[in-house]
Amino acid sequence: MKTDRIERVIKAMAEEGLTQMLVCDPGSIYYLTGVMQHSGERLFALYITASGDHRFIANKLFPEPDAGIPVIWHTDTDNIAEVICGVIDTTRDLGIDKVMTARFLIPLQEKLSGVKTPLASQCVDWVRAVKDQNERQLMRMNSEINDKVMLSVPEAIREGVTEREVADFIKRRYIEEGCQGVSFSPIVSFGANAADPHHMPDDTVISEGDCIVVDIGGKKEDYCSDMTRTFFYKRADEKYASIHDIVRKANEKAESIIKPGVKLCDIDAAARDYISSFGYGQYFTHRLGHFIGMGVHEYGDVSSAFDVPVKEGMCFSIEPGVYLTGEFGVRVEDLVLVTADGCEVLNKVDKKWTVIE
Amino acid sequence: MKTDRIERVIKAMAEEGLTQMLVCDPGSIYYLTGVMQHSGERLFALYITASGDHRFIANKLFPEPDAGIPVIWHTDTDNIAEVICGVIDTTRDLGIDKVMTARFLIPLQEKLSGVKTPLASQCVDWVRAVKDQNERQLMRMNSEINDKVMLSVPEAIREGVTEREVADFIKRRYIEEGCQGVSFSPIVSFGANAADPHHMPDDTVISEGDCIVVDIGGKKEDYCSDMTRTFFYKRADEKYASIHDIVRKANEKAESIIKPGVKLCDIDAAARDYISSFGYGQYFTHRLGHFIGMGVHEYGDVSSAFDVPVKEGMCFSIEPGVYLTGEFGVRVEDLVLVTADGCEVLNKVDKKWTVIE
Repeated sequence: MKTDRIERVIKAMAEEGLTQMLVCDPGSIYYLTGVMQHSGERLFALYITASGDHRFIANKLFPEPDAGIPVIWHTDTDNIAEVICGVIDTTRDLGIDKVMTARFLIPLQEKLSGVKTPLASQCVDWVRAVKDQNERQLMRMNSEINDKVMLSVPEAIREGVTEREVADFIKRRYIEEGCQGVSFSPIVSFGANAADPHHMPDDTVISEGDCIVVDIGGKKEDYCSDMTRTFFYKRADEKYASIHDIVRKANEKAESIIKPGVKLCDIDAAARDYISSFGYGQYFTHRLGHFIGMGVHEYGDVSSAFDVPVKEGMCFSIEPGVYLTGEFGVRVEDLVLVTADGCEVLNKVDKKWTVIE
Repeated sequence: MKTDRIERVIKAMAEEGLTQMLVCDPGSIYYLTGVMQHSGERLFALYITASGDHRFIANKLFPEPDAGIPVIWHTDTDNIAEVICGVIDTTRDLGIDKVMTARFLIPLQEKLSGVKTPLASQCVDWVRAVKDQNERQLMRMNSEINDKVMLSVPEAIREGVTEREVADFIKRRYIEEGCQGVSFSPIVSFGANAADPHHMPDDTVISEGDCIVVDIGGKKEDYCSDMTRTFFYKRADEKYASIHDIVRKANEKAESIIKPGVKLCDIDAAARDYISSFGYGQYFTHRLGHFIGMGVHEYGDVSSAFDVPVKEGMCFSIEPGVYLTGEFGVRVEDLVLVTADGCEVLNKVDKKWTVIE
């Protein structure tokens, strides 16, 4: 049990008028207790209460979570709403994790008439968002490794190579660097494939003039990295190179204004407005960034939907992009860590495109 | 769009007093429309209405679902509850899929005051549970393949072999048989490892006298198989072999009573009571079976929690087990298809344990 983290969560709950909540996100439970359990469709929850009598609610088919927190067991034939009601204070509002499924939530709400079940996972998520000193070191270390892996990508580029082969090379590189593996399946997109930000590496063979968009991350000691850089094969198309320069400058604009107190939506706007001033705003089709830590996508977006001011210790991606369907796509992505008076850009690899001969 | 399937769902909704629902389970959406999309934390839903004006609700970052159903798009910065309220009839109760997460459900409920949001995925799930003639053929074909793969397992057993090597052999066998792959990660458990029904193949090396529990399934043309058989290496321990015989007979008892009208809980009881009569009831720690089709675990359990009478065309597993921690574990599992007056056992491999020399 990570007592200090749970205490911070209880404080955040109090600010929302809550004395109890159910945490269901396996990553959050791991963050708060050190116990990792994926129970599929079955309920595995951590009940947190201001009184300190926390409980696990776990299915008997899985191993006992060992974190000094008592376990309330259930089986597949138990009525889960009744099990939960046996654990919580049924006279008070109960905070709910955003990943709890309707399968459990609706029957629980039906039993808890008169008591509210507001979303409360933000009480955990904003605690997770602010990294402690040890976590900051782990984020730095992982991004250093990511830089090394990115710098080695040109070794994999040769006549006839496919996206899949480059992606496989990258996966091996993380293992060589001592990682547990990748933090997400590597994105390697040649030419027009890069116009789809979710393109998965396939058997596309490289051609002269192709852009090579590489969006990759590894995972070591449970923390993630995530970065995107662009190469061109043999020659850089003038139009595409100039769009890349715009996107790179948008990335730098956003990073230049980050410091405690600046709102996430304003960081997004800094990059978006710059791209729009060149007429490409409609082709920047996603949020500017996402939070990251033990999960590669943690709660919190750098987007117009979040008007939250950033705090020292927050860590997120800055990844503006422009996507021209059928033609080309580009993204320039770093991780940043908010400092007392600015931010530390965790990725040191030159942001500018380079040509691989 | 699979019009007949959607019509059956609307009929089931009417029986629960519903005229509209949101389907979120990607497998159910695929079953009803032919569109497969995994949108992670983002909402991808099929809105079904008795009026016939069905809609997809989809995130712009993903490809357009192409099934003749209009798409209501949203982006990461939209308020999803508002998007949903723009699609549905906000004056009537709205059925909710069991896999919808609180992230979307709670804000939606807050906007829909006075209107109920009951669980309604059972309206889809019980339609999926009854296979049509084409699906029955696909279930038969997949279990025939599974039989072939199971019969080949002894080829992989040799001195020094590990669980992982046997599992890798099995994965290759499905590919050789023309499958898309496995329907779940193969379970291969030697000796005491078999006492954990969720044991994942590791580097355990086989020893003389070990049981070898093999729980495997493949997937071809989008449908799944699932079967468990037990081998012994070189010699069968007398105690373990006799427990296996009890579990096998429990499997046969249950299968012998299956016909339309018999309740799922009574099928479970038939196997459980038999095992209990030998004093092993407390070691049979899970449900007797689960429904299966396009998903390896579809909605519906053969357990005391389901008092639903079975219907012709339903397909589920019958898999009693006994688990003695630190010693031994066994499961005997077939798939069955309910017929007009009984059931067809889809797996033909001899249920009795065999010794591999």
